[in-house]
Amino acid sequence: MSTSERWSVPASEALSVVPGFRLADIDTRATPGYDGKKADGQADLEAGIAPLSGLQERLFAQSVAGTATGSVLLVLQAMDTAGKGGIVRHVVGSVDPQGVELASFKKPTAEELSHDFLWRIRKRLPDAGRIGVFDRSHYEDVLIGRVRQLAPADEIERRYGAIVGFEAEAADLGIRLVKVMLHISKDEQRARLAERLERPDKHWKYNPSDVDERELWDDYMDAYQAAIERTSTPLAPWHVIPADRKWYARLAVQRLLIDALTDIDPRWPTADYDVKEEKRRLAAS
Amino acid sequence: MSTSERWSVPASEALSVVPGFRLADIDTRATPGYDGKKADGQADLEAGIAPLSGLQERLFAQSVAGTATGSVLLVLQAMDTAGKGGIVRHVVGSVDPQGVELASFKKPTAEELSHDFLWRIRKRLPDAGRIGVFDRSHYEDVLIGRVRQLAPADEIERRYGAIVGFEAEAADLGIRLVKVMLHISKDEQRARLAERLERPDKHWKYNPSDVDERELWDDYMDAYQAAIERTSTPLAPWHVIPADRKWYARLAVQRLLIDALTDIDPRWPTADYDVKEEKRRLAAS
Repeated sequence: MSTSERWSVPASEALSVVPGFRLADIDTRATPGYDGKKADGQADLEAGIAPLSGLQERLFAQSVAGTATGSVLLVLQAMDTAGKGGIVRHVVGSVDPQGVELASFKKPTAEELSHDFLWRIRKRLPDAGRIGVFDRSHYEDVLIGRVRQLAPADEIERRYGAIVGFEAEAADLGIRLVKVMLHISKDEQRARLAERLERPDKHWKYNPSDVDERELWDDYMDAYQAAIERTSTPLAPWHVIPADRKWYARLAVQRLLIDALTDIDPRWPTADYDVKEEKRRLAAS
Repeated sequence: MSTSERWSVPASEALSVVPGFRLADIDTRATPGYDGKKADGQADLEAGIAPLSGLQERLFAQSVAGTATGSVLLVLQAMDTAGKGGIVRHVVGSVDPQGVELASFKKPTAEELSHDFLWRIRKRLPDAGRIGVFDRSHYEDVLIGRVRQLAPADEIERRYGAIVGFEAEAADLGIRLVKVMLHISKDEQRARLAERLERPDKHWKYNPSDVDERELWDDYMDAYQAAIERTSTPLAPWHVIPADRKWYARLAVQRLLIDALTDIDPRWPTADYDVKEEKRRLAAS
């Protein structure tokens, strides 16, 4: 899989969280590792569909053949309007839906709340041979959970460790975690929310609670900073993707997925039947 | 939604099962209702993505706003290689995955077998505002179920009526059923299976049991004939789509979905908040 020459630094490297990183220092309009402009990025996104689909099809073939050992789990976290939906639509949506398991985690139900916060998450881990996508995730329980004090402070504390353990377990099962925070600026969010209020065909995307959460922006940034610091591990690293430029965020997520799949290196399953004999049977049928 | 001029008869009409229809009389290479050739069909499929996506987005918007009352359920049945996967990939895969609920029904598990055949089906009916897709369905229980005598004859008999009742219930819930049989010829199937055996990157799509089932072709056609006759109702009609030409089958399914969604006529939800007040709050935030 040839990396576009416009990536001067591999995306996974350019976007990885390093010790001492500070969310506040990240330029949300930057395009780390990528030297192209918007038109280049759009062309590269288009050009990336075939390799992504090709890898995904081989992975899916393994799941059908029962030989798959690996899967990919894309975890998407972001403030409202940062572009999670666009990633699902334009990046995930470009591969065969049969191989994708998409889970959107909303406000937990009463039943879900009666269990540990990881209970509902565990059930949605992708099967071998699939690409799983979490639109929001267990991280909500240390983000809104912390900002809105939905659980006592010591429970929030406990959760960071529980997440690290849980993700290590998932990695042991062959799940490659691609954890992504789409990072927009507060100004960019205002502009995007304003557009939703301007256009009647976007009104449904707006909710007054979006502004309530927005007013806690700094608290959310602190919660993201803590969550990312506490749960970025070699097996399950965080990537913070500047997302004021939608084209860049999509391109970067596509690249991270291609890299994760390339790393699994799925091969076409070999026939577990006698091809010659089957040709004979078929011809006679 | 303007229907392409190349559809001289609406797809739903051209493909509907009429009293006295005989599967054996249908030309599997025909393109009922459509006057174009392959290149036209491919162009029209491409041109249909935007209207299909647009309708689907409005339907999904309603589900987010909590105002959706309708949904669509595409039921796909076919002999092996007839192109179900291609429909999922190229037609369903062209809309936002967030609004799609895809269910693939495999050989029932022990737990599923311990319940009525509709038990596992009922659980996968689409939520309001979604497009559900059944890749195989409850019809397997009167197709392979009948051909392979997986249940006593009187139980198979009972199931036709149970299906009609079940689908009437689903229609009452606002689910528009689009039931499709992709109809290929036995020769076309041989050619497609042969290709899977020829190409190592297609070996995973082949299973020796495909030839076992193929040897029961006539029994399967009888079972399809009976199932379609017994369960085609005004609320849940069957469409038999000639599928030797993949481009036609995809175009026809896309058209049936567009028609079903047009019939629901989803509108953008109106804001249930005070837009002016929210603009003020946002500006101040």
